[in-house]
Amino acid sequence: MSELVDSEEIEVLLKKLPEWEHEGKEIFRIIEFDEFMDGIDFVDGVAEIAEEDGHHPDIDIRWCTITVRLTSHEAGGLTDIDFEMAKKIDNLTD
Amino acid sequence: MSELVDSEEIEVLLKKLPEWEHEGKEIFRIIEFDEFMDGIDFVDGVAEIAEEDGHHPDIDIRWCTITVRLTSHEAGGLTDIDFEMAKKIDNLTD
Repeated sequence: MSELVDSEEIEVLLKKLPEWEHEGKEIFRIIEFDEFMDGIDFVDGVAEIAEEDGHHPDIDIRWCTITVRLTSHEAGGLTDIDFEMAKKIDNLTD
Repeated sequence: MSELVDSEEIEVLLKKLPEWEHEGKEIFRIIEFDEFMDGIDFVDGVAEIAEEDGHHPDIDIRWCTITVRLTSHEAGGLTDIDFEMAKKIDNLTD
């Protein structure tokens, strides 16, 4: 199990992930797409990464707006795994 | 634009949709799948129906648990369109 990342480290890690925000035990990113199906394609991409890594973010679909939330439930907060996955998710939208 | 369904009619319509619950201006269904990717396949099916009908439910993905919420934003509440879509969504899981 990965270790929890402390709040100072979170701020450092988030500087490399400008699209993500920190809230409590989570980081989240809100992405707006022009088309509903583009958002769904993105969700499918996130799901593929999630399944490969055995780490499943919460995902909210609100028409063309998708919110992805990451935390490590087993660890009770944010771990390196969350920040690595955030980077992979960002790569989907590059 | 479809007309709002009144609360009496909502109860009648929901009798045919036992998996759905009524909350305020929405009806919602929570579905648990055995596998994460089964839930994602279901979301893809809902998205296809949504896009075909031009009516997009809110969808929350929490690992294997998917919540679908239906309302008619333009009408400011529930219309026939929501109950028709609920039925179509149920057909995905039959």
